[in-house]
Amino acid sequence: MNRVERGATALSWPVARVISHRRVYAGRVLSLDVDEIEEPSGIQVTREVVRHSGSVVVLAVDEQGRLVLVRQYRYPVDDAIWEIPAGRQDPGESPEEGARRELEEEVGVRAESLERVLTFYASPGFCDEVMHLFRATGLTLAPARPDPDEDIEARWVSLTEARAMADRGEVKDAKTLLALLLEEERRRKQ
Amino acid sequence: MNRVERGATALSWPVARVISHRRVYAGRVLSLDVDEIEEPSGIQVTREVVRHSGSVVVLAVDEQGRLVLVRQYRYPVDDAIWEIPAGRQDPGESPEEGARRELEEEVGVRAESLERVLTFYASPGFCDEVMHLFRATGLTLAPARPDPDEDIEARWVSLTEARAMADRGEVKDAKTLLALLLEEERRRKQ
Repeated sequence: MNRVERGATALSWPVARVISHRRVYAGRVLSLDVDEIEEPSGIQVTREVVRHSGSVVVLAVDEQGRLVLVRQYRYPVDDAIWEIPAGRQDPGESPEEGARRELEEEVGVRAESLERVLTFYASPGFCDEVMHLFRATGLTLAPARPDPDEDIEARWVSLTEARAMADRGEVKDAKTLLALLLEEERRRKQ
Repeated sequence: MNRVERGATALSWPVARVISHRRVYAGRVLSLDVDEIEEPSGIQVTREVVRHSGSVVVLAVDEQGRLVLVRQYRYPVDDAIWEIPAGRQDPGESPEEGARRELEEEVGVRAESLERVLTFYASPGFCDEVMHLFRATGLTLAPARPDPDEDIEARWVSLTEARAMADRGEVKDAKTLLALLLEEERRRKQ
């Protein structure tokens, strides 16, 4: 199951009734639907929906407590931005498997231990993308094997430095900011 | 300017060269491009990109320190989920104007003071959506005027309760989780 689990609201909120469904694009990374629906409230409306297979996101922490950031050019925002390692879940792959694969591909690191931190929606107003955030520890080196269409720079930094980068506006990616704040909280509680 | 400001990396990372551009869908909420590009690294690749006008997100805090959550059915994820008020930026509208409008539409509240907290990307791997997070205070009642295609339930809760909802998995929206963590940090520092 790739979806975030429905809450206790599920019974009182029946699903929408699909009046018409049109897949206007079926691609490699995403698909786009334009659906006419009747929402549980009775509202009839046309919704444009991006369908995505879900993403895995990895906060990898080494024995010194440093974490790895990767920088890559992101064409949608036309900028090279710092993020924690992340990528799409491949078909048939569990979130855990995807997280291990992305970490190995992007940083050349294998994780002995993988802890699921949080599962959340990236932008549920128009997209079904679910993000699975993991915390990876027990790291050992493995040969990096980047995707042929990726050019990635990795940097190991302290949490303090990563947070300073965020405060300076150098980290501006939601999943990465969320992971940094949760890691700060975790360490405060230790 | 709707984009997140480019960092100091801008000079060393020239923009991509667009080899071919195809707009496969132009819609009301979003558009979809399939572009063949040469990235700054020299990699030639086809990218599917969702183009979005940007979103405004509002953490509204009343005099007792309570904040407002709204629940609405989100067709993409087929669930009624709790979020802080948010919506698309309308054409020609500044983020501040959009934030005020969304707060009034969704909750029936006017804000005397609006502070910009953070600007970030929701999912920069395939989408250019920028989210502008504001903190609204000095709240006064105004008649709610929801969009005809929205059915919204509002709830005022303490930050502790909002965070408990998140910990129970009842808040699973990235922008909302990020706003709650930043508000906790703000209060700790006071």
